[in-house]
Amino acid sequence: MMTRPTLKDVARRASVSVSTVSYALNDDSHVHLAPETRARVRRIAKELGYTPNAMARSLRTRSSRTAGVVLTKPLTNLRYAAIVQGIANGLATSGLRMTVLPDATAGVLEDCRNGMIDGLIFVGHDDAVPPPALVEAAAVGVAPLVTIDCGGRAADAPHSAVDFDYAHGAREMITHLAGRDIRTILHVRPEVSSRAERDRQATLMRALGHADGVTMRVVSTGMSDEDLARTDAEDGAIARGYLASTLRSITDALLGVDDPDTTAVLCSWGADVETSLRAVSHVAPGTVVAALAGSWPRTEIWPDLVYSRLPLEEAGRRAAALLSSELAPDREHLSIVLPPALDTRLPETPPGRTPA
Amino acid sequence: MMTRPTLKDVARRASVSVSTVSYALNDDSHVHLAPETRARVRRIAKELGYTPNAMARSLRTRSSRTAGVVLTKPLTNLRYAAIVQGIANGLATSGLRMTVLPDATAGVLEDCRNGMIDGLIFVGHDDAVPPPALVEAAAVGVAPLVTIDCGGRAADAPHSAVDFDYAHGAREMITHLAGRDIRTILHVRPEVSSRAERDRQATLMRALGHADGVTMRVVSTGMSDEDLARTDAEDGAIARGYLASTLRSITDALLGVDDPDTTAVLCSWGADVETSLRAVSHVAPGTVVAALAGSWPRTEIWPDLVYSRLPLEEAGRRAAALLSSELAPDREHLSIVLPPALDTRLPETPPGRTPA
Repeated sequence: MMTRPTLKDVARRASVSVSTVSYALNDDSHVHLAPETRARVRRIAKELGYTPNAMARSLRTRSSRTAGVVLTKPLTNLRYAAIVQGIANGLATSGLRMTVLPDATAGVLEDCRNGMIDGLIFVGHDDAVPPPALVEAAAVGVAPLVTIDCGGRAADAPHSAVDFDYAHGAREMITHLAGRDIRTILHVRPEVSSRAERDRQATLMRALGHADGVTMRVVSTGMSDEDLARTDAEDGAIARGYLASTLRSITDALLGVDDPDTTAVLCSWGADVETSLRAVSHVAPGTVVAALAGSWPRTEIWPDLVYSRLPLEEAGRRAAALLSSELAPDREHLSIVLPPALDTRLPETPPGRTPA
Repeated sequence: MMTRPTLKDVARRASVSVSTVSYALNDDSHVHLAPETRARVRRIAKELGYTPNAMARSLRTRSSRTAGVVLTKPLTNLRYAAIVQGIANGLATSGLRMTVLPDATAGVLEDCRNGMIDGLIFVGHDDAVPPPALVEAAAVGVAPLVTIDCGGRAADAPHSAVDFDYAHGAREMITHLAGRDIRTILHVRPEVSSRAERDRQATLMRALGHADGVTMRVVSTGMSDEDLARTDAEDGAIARGYLASTLRSITDALLGVDDPDTTAVLCSWGADVETSLRAVSHVAPGTVVAALAGSWPRTEIWPDLVYSRLPLEEAGRRAAALLSSELAPDREHLSIVLPPALDTRLPETPPGRTPA
């Protein structure tokens, strides 16, 4: 094996400490260094042919075969349980352990540096993107990183990413509903202002533009950013008042439509599907309940239910595989975008055709 | 710091190997030793003042502040997601990391020995008890252990335990149903032959003995031990055929009762609640659906639903706290038994009284 220059070599040649070299080579470091020191260290590193990878590799000889999964959402939300289960399965096939971390505070990177954690998988959602410190650590090779569901990956991002093609899911759903002769969509949605929510709304509006004669009416659940933060803090426990008021809103909307047979309730969130099923079974049996995210009620049991289901476990498995690649010496950063799949008991009707 | 005698010191003095000392000091070891060897090693250990704690303590100086959670069930089963979330919350307050382990094979104890894992929490279910190797490792202080839901703890077991008082839950449920004037209970249950299932059945029969005029009819879901193993292996994905046949069985049973108003469907498993709700909403609206385990359908949304809910997250939190105690120098082994709580929207009716 060829010996590659290490941080230590650079430090010795530059007559500074190893940490100074590390700070000097790290663009986003918050430690203040004299500009001339920074420039000199960088010049020497370049002369010696030092690359961050060498550092990562030397650290990796102290490998613990452990991946850290940064999860800021509760496991009791089935969405995250499925992603984490997929990660666990994927890591197991690579012989890696899984440590679940509630956040990405300083200690995490410390453990990456001292070899207790080999790499990180950051599980995103809504507006969450990996903290800059994690991206920095990935850039200098301290902690190889894979993100899940963080709204895409910039071409020069120093990590790999798994994302969902939400737009595809929304288009497919609108086409499906139009094919079932649905004319009125009651869109049950929160007041949350996240990137995910904005994207979903924009995509739905575009898809509706292609579905002649289908109109959409918004039924707000009133769930705000603050409510969501509170729910997460309480391990996903939704306030009783929320359920009662959402049940009322959906019921009122259903009672207000002219033709329940050509109406569908379309939930942005899987969490509102149960309430929608209950409302429908009370005042409009047979009305289609659809959702842009999976949930627990099963299409095998509720025949008028249809989901655009995210491949959550697959996303976890693929992220684990990407992390394995990131840990390999010739690692490269990859992007995977997974489309949701329509989950329905009813046969697909070709768009534009009236069902027999 | 005082130097305390180690396993090695005992082995040297007794002229046996370190493993022999470990086996000799461990009551539950399955390794056969001549009784005189065992007695001699124990005498020498006593003379030297050796205690398992000393070894544990010396190992613990290489502490990683990491707890291993041995979970052989899928996280996509909400029951285990809730337990693991509780453990995560509890460990976080003690400043411990959580590593989730899919089994307790040799590598786990190796990691305990080399200080990468400080202690273990074993999540049980059905027939699962901690593997003897884990109990041995706990006995000699290599890996402090806390079990969850393993059917109780022997008085001399070398670990702590959190269990559920299933009998209390079953009694409370029968009393509740009798108080609601239920005369016929359709008991939806699997064919699984686990300890948990046998206990549940025995407790229900005892509770029924105290509820005059209430009769129980078994509706089998046909779920066998093999089916359950297959479901677990597929991350909790239940076969479509199972749902359809269970829906049929429950529907048939409901159509066969004389008075739906005094009938309740009682599920052993939370997994059958959704199917029961669907059957009831089709052929017997207003019939009570009850379950001896929690599930996702919410009592806030389905007014005729009642659960005996296990305090899953609390069990996880308490197990994490017990592990912290087990890691302390003056550790003792404790048992906690948590009762389920009745989860219902309806006000409790005193037993023996007819609701107004």
